[in-house]
Amino acid sequence: MDRSAEFRRWKAQCLSKADLSRKGSVDEDVVELVQLLNGREEFFTTSSCAGRIILLDGGIDGFEVQKQNCCWLLVTHKPCVKDDVIVALKKANSDAILKFEPFILHVQCRQLQDAQILAVRSTHGLEVPLSHKGQLMVTEEYIDFLLKIANQKMEENKKRIERFYSCLQHALEREAITNSHPREKIRGEENSSYSPKKKRNPEKARGKCITEENDKELENDDDDDPGISVPFFPEDY
Amino acid sequence: MDRSAEFRRWKAQCLSKADLSRKGSVDEDVVELVQLLNGREEFFTTSSCAGRIILLDGGIDGFEVQKQNCCWLLVTHKPCVKDDVIVALKKANSDAILKFEPFILHVQCRQLQDAQILAVRSTHGLEVPLSHKGQLMVTEEYIDFLLKIANQKMEENKKRIERFYSCLQHALEREAITNSHPREKIRGEENSSYSPKKKRNPEKARGKCITEENDKELENDDDDDPGISVPFFPEDY
Repeated sequence: MDRSAEFRRWKAQCLSKADLSRKGSVDEDVVELVQLLNGREEFFTTSSCAGRIILLDGGIDGFEVQKQNCCWLLVTHKPCVKDDVIVALKKANSDAILKFEPFILHVQCRQLQDAQILAVRSTHGLEVPLSHKGQLMVTEEYIDFLLKIANQKMEENKKRIERFYSCLQHALEREAITNSHPREKIRGEENSSYSPKKKRNPEKARGKCITEENDKELENDDDDDPGISVPFFPEDY
Repeated sequence: MDRSAEFRRWKAQCLSKADLSRKGSVDEDVVELVQLLNGREEFFTTSSCAGRIILLDGGIDGFEVQKQNCCWLLVTHKPCVKDDVIVALKKANSDAILKFEPFILHVQCRQLQDAQILAVRSTHGLEVPLSHKGQLMVTEEYIDFLLKIANQKMEENKKRIERFYSCLQHALEREAITNSHPREKIRGEENSSYSPKKKRNPEKARGKCITEENDKELENDDDDDPGISVPFFPEDY
């Protein structure tokens, strides 16, 4: 079986499986995006989350939240009010943490080449310890303040999903045009739309359609680094 | 000029430039790692941070910290005590945020192939708003509690750098052995140590030497997902 056929078989197998997430379905805000990718023969998604505000209790093992021993007190993909958190916190008997987790998407790609438009990551999170051994460490006023920030992030995150969707759509359309030429010819000419080209602008070469940015401020001259690891070698230095 | 020569020239150019970071040098805890990578002809690092506790003031624009308008009240790559933060907070006149940022490394790779061992990311952060319009929103006790967590993360982060260093060293040694065979022959045999192989275990194929994990708990069956996007197609489904 050739690689393409193998990929098709693998994709069909994965997509036919039951959705094993707690929710059992794809989040509303990323349904279109997931469909766009799964409708293309070169991709399929294995997991996604549109972004959420989550209140976890316990399971911290020195460094990080341990899945095994932690309990979800609250999960929402919509803006959240203080009272929801206050009520949920009453059930906390360990170390509760409020987190905002932005949009995430895992995509399987048929070829390494196809993966170049899909290196997306974001670190626009929020991770705030609220209680210790069941005891609340902050005021209600602080929780209110925090939720305003979390809700703003949620709002901005939604805009970014939309921006990512339209950029991806545009990129895939461009690829479709390129692919209407025979592939051998394109390869011969080194003319694939996702290959870096000589004398190309580095910012352009770095995947301009990727909208999620890293907010880690690296202390160097890389000010315009979009925080995206696009694993190819820009040739225009 | 062939691609290898071009890469060499680019690398030499980048490494000869002054370090434009605020600190002006590579963080102590990642010096060895940076040297290991820069000593290899197929890689060079463009930026790095060993991990830090940072207190920022202001510049929040709805969603994220804006570099342009924000002020660093405190930055440390070592464990931090409450009084340091309390003193630094006195200078805050906007929205102060305490963050723990783990180890990050940006690596340029000669070939897409070389990039496969280097897809590293981590989301083990901490991002806690502390003040609003110059007014402290939490107690000193809370700051103390928070710093204990941040310092634990710092400690764990250091262990991960060490683990990553030794795994990378091991992987590069394996590659050196593979490369002692003529490359054409290796390619012909599909025997490169970083190429996915048929019937290979997916976890192995996913870059087992990468130690940084994503703590985002995806709501699916992907429980053993190391949170690493290795952009190739595992063929053993």
